[in-house]
Amino acid sequence: MKTYLKRIVSALITLCVVFACQEAKAKSNAKVEQWKMYELTYPLKVTGNPFEEVELSATFYHTGDTVKVKGFYDGNGIFKVRFMPGITGEWTYQTSSNVKKLNNKKGSFECYPAGKDNHGPVEVDSLKFAYSDGTYYIPIGTTCYAWVHQPEELKRQTLETLKDGYFNKIRMCVFPKSYDWNHNEPEYYPFESTAGNWDFSRFNPEYFKNIEKSIIALDSLGIEADIIVFHPYDRWGFSSLGLPVRDKYMQYLISRLGAFKNVWWSMANEYDFMNAYNEDDWKHHLEFFAENDPYNHLRSIHNGVKMYDHNDKNVTHVSIQAPDTRNGWNITNRYHKPVIYDECRYEGNIPWSWGTLSGEEMVEKFWDGFLSGAFVGHGEVLLERNDILPWESDEILWWSKGGKMKGKSHERIKFLKQILEEAPADLAPAKSLTGWQNYPILSSGEDFYLLYFGRDIHCQKVLELPKDKKYKVELIDTWNMDITPLDGTFSGQSLIKIPQNPYMALRIISVK
Amino acid sequence: MKTYLKRIVSALITLCVVFACQEAKAKSNAKVEQWKMYELTYPLKVTGNPFEEVELSATFYHTGDTVKVKGFYDGNGIFKVRFMPGITGEWTYQTSSNVKKLNNKKGSFECYPAGKDNHGPVEVDSLKFAYSDGTYYIPIGTTCYAWVHQPEELKRQTLETLKDGYFNKIRMCVFPKSYDWNHNEPEYYPFESTAGNWDFSRFNPEYFKNIEKSIIALDSLGIEADIIVFHPYDRWGFSSLGLPVRDKYMQYLISRLGAFKNVWWSMANEYDFMNAYNEDDWKHHLEFFAENDPYNHLRSIHNGVKMYDHNDKNVTHVSIQAPDTRNGWNITNRYHKPVIYDECRYEGNIPWSWGTLSGEEMVEKFWDGFLSGAFVGHGEVLLERNDILPWESDEILWWSKGGKMKGKSHERIKFLKQILEEAPADLAPAKSLTGWQNYPILSSGEDFYLLYFGRDIHCQKVLELPKDKKYKVELIDTWNMDITPLDGTFSGQSLIKIPQNPYMALRIISVK
Repeated sequence: MKTYLKRIVSALITLCVVFACQEAKAKSNAKVEQWKMYELTYPLKVTGNPFEEVELSATFYHTGDTVKVKGFYDGNGIFKVRFMPGITGEWTYQTSSNVKKLNNKKGSFECYPAGKDNHGPVEVDSLKFAYSDGTYYIPIGTTCYAWVHQPEELKRQTLETLKDGYFNKIRMCVFPKSYDWNHNEPEYYPFESTAGNWDFSRFNPEYFKNIEKSIIALDSLGIEADIIVFHPYDRWGFSSLGLPVRDKYMQYLISRLGAFKNVWWSMANEYDFMNAYNEDDWKHHLEFFAENDPYNHLRSIHNGVKMYDHNDKNVTHVSIQAPDTRNGWNITNRYHKPVIYDECRYEGNIPWSWGTLSGEEMVEKFWDGFLSGAFVGHGEVLLERNDILPWESDEILWWSKGGKMKGKSHERIKFLKQILEEAPADLAPAKSLTGWQNYPILSSGEDFYLLYFGRDIHCQKVLELPKDKKYKVELIDTWNMDITPLDGTFSGQSLIKIPQNPYMALRIISVK
Repeated sequence: MKTYLKRIVSALITLCVVFACQEAKAKSNAKVEQWKMYELTYPLKVTGNPFEEVELSATFYHTGDTVKVKGFYDGNGIFKVRFMPGITGEWTYQTSSNVKKLNNKKGSFECYPAGKDNHGPVEVDSLKFAYSDGTYYIPIGTTCYAWVHQPEELKRQTLETLKDGYFNKIRMCVFPKSYDWNHNEPEYYPFESTAGNWDFSRFNPEYFKNIEKSIIALDSLGIEADIIVFHPYDRWGFSSLGLPVRDKYMQYLISRLGAFKNVWWSMANEYDFMNAYNEDDWKHHLEFFAENDPYNHLRSIHNGVKMYDHNDKNVTHVSIQAPDTRNGWNITNRYHKPVIYDECRYEGNIPWSWGTLSGEEMVEKFWDGFLSGAFVGHGEVLLERNDILPWESDEILWWSKGGKMKGKSHERIKFLKQILEEAPADLAPAKSLTGWQNYPILSSGEDFYLLYFGRDIHCQKVLELPKDKKYKVELIDTWNMDITPLDGTFSGQSLIKIPQNPYMALRIISVK
């Protein structure tokens, strides 16, 4: 009976909608680079609610692939279909719509090979990550939750900071953020409003244009956008949306943003702090992206205090809030998925303990995590004023608003990043070179080792190196960013003299 | 049948022994201070094995108490009975022996009140410790396992170092130690030997005299001797003694050392690393001391990697090897016994990770542990030479041989000791003053708080102080040993400005 009623309502709507069509001819280019966004644009004036009443999709054909994607309304009488071709060569397409003028539009374009810095979207590659072209991707992320909702000048400054190559991933929220030090209003809101009430049936395209502009800017810097779909830091009502609104919202994100290669879907920040949604909701959100995102972008869900059940097949990788980054390999093996400590506490000096790491500690958590086979993300909350309470202050902190970094960790993280990028691609957690003492260690077979001592102080260390190979040993002072080769070569049981500083590492490379 | 045989053998021995008695008259003083050692001395020449064949005990009578203690053979034809009176006033005694000349000796003496620095033996007082006179005792221990087995000059130096008042407890082994950096032979051995074989039926009194001299020297410095009865670091065969030998050995320790007020019995260091003994053996050892030590000195058992079941009623307090001293109160509550982290790793620079704490870390573990309602012990392994392998070096390290300390932690530990000694005696773990953020905190009701932030960096902190009281707040820089009072008074929700250093603590005291 319900289904019957629904059908009648649906038929009536279709009949009643008055389409004042201007023209419905796609504006598009005849060529697109592999993994870049190809866009079909159809102007079409609609007097009803274009978000609700117009259905538009397109199917893209290649001899090796067929991809169906949904279009979206972009405001100002413009409908769009976005597509990211993963295969080079000739593609054709054909649209489908409940509006005749948008239906059955056809065309073709050429997809030419990716340029030098374009490796395609990031995918899970066993227990690590790789770009679609097979290039190894090591996520070294940071966190600027609400940077896209700040004034233009601040956004520009954030991108300027990011240009320096510290990070290749950023966590950022779709919805604006309400929290300590975050009391300013965003320039736009995600939904239209009438008489002070949100009209959840109408998205505000300007709001999403701002976000996609930011995503494109990040892509040009080689930075993955880890898009946080839902979050609890809210004073507007965006953290307790009904299921149909959420479904439309998620589809809108997929349609608008999915064709950008550097997009990841993070279902939530601190999902367990969102009282309006339960476990089934989160299962559904993950399933929705898994089923509707034609590109299968990475999907994760970040916890407050209760980890989500990462056995869920729709979770591609573990995005965790937890301080003990040395535990990385255990979690990796528990779920057989790569693990990113997206939040292991932040470098900062704020009154809340999640943001009170010294630079030393932040860097230590990076080395601990990476050398334990996991990945770690950065955040910074360094206050300059100590005389204003958090809920009365609007100080700009990198972790949420972006801007400039003031901390000591990011330079050292970049140093680690370079060391990891120079290392063999097949690095994996290795058997201890120090007997029962389990320091974090990665190796590439018996040819390359990276070993980290954390805070432990040594004047000497006994290593059990393979006996049938010779090695050169380099001392890495991870805090002072200093690499010192030791004299001679080493083999078998070796006494290594170490300067008595904390945060020392060893790089051990086999030589002929 | 076995019992029958035993009786015959016993009777024969008694008959066959030839006692060449000189005189069996006790040399003793007529007066002794409360909780000091009162000694009866009986010369008696024995041609057989005086350890095996002579039984001697004495019962001490007071109107308020009766204590039976066993005597021991002290070599050179001297038998002794030692007694520590716990009650002042008139005591009488009567000996009992299987040798007529030692039997039924009687006497009396006066026990006068303890002097100013004599508070009696330490006892468990609920979840803490107190001396027998009720004075609160806060164990701040160190570790010099084999210091009594070093040359005289080194022993003298150790005592000289201890004079400076850093510590009021020391862990030390009865048996000599064989380990990295410990290859020297002791001056004496605990057993006599014949033709290169130990005669486990004959103790070497010189060996034990050396130990008791050390215990007396420690007592004069106000230091408790945490005597380690068994340990695994052995090349002589003292870590795998048969049960009858162990029983005689434990009784010998009780008879010789039990009358010293500053003695504690630690069944073992790393009991679980001793392959020759099983759980039943350890249960038995604890029971033996519980049943045979008339003074009920403190009893503990220290673990390697596997904690002993501290529900054992004969364990008086938890002596633990574990690094996470913030967990102290959890363990305290698990066993309803006070917890001493006798080994939380040591300040050092050696190749083995148990001895690689920076000074900062060692001090942090102390503050973490004490402010979590537990107690923490110190150790130091700072090598000066980095070019000799541990098993080839005999460098003097405080942790085993004593001597001088070279580290940075002991001065800061003394600073903490003073702060704890100045604090109210009823300090106990308290409800957080920082909401959900569980920093280690002790309080005396709502009148005194001690709160420690560890490595966490702050420029400000929000405290939730009781609203109906006023407080002065002092910033304690636990590393720089600096106490800075803040201007004004605080009440209710308070913003505290904090210098951005790690290792900060707050002392908060109510004012009128």
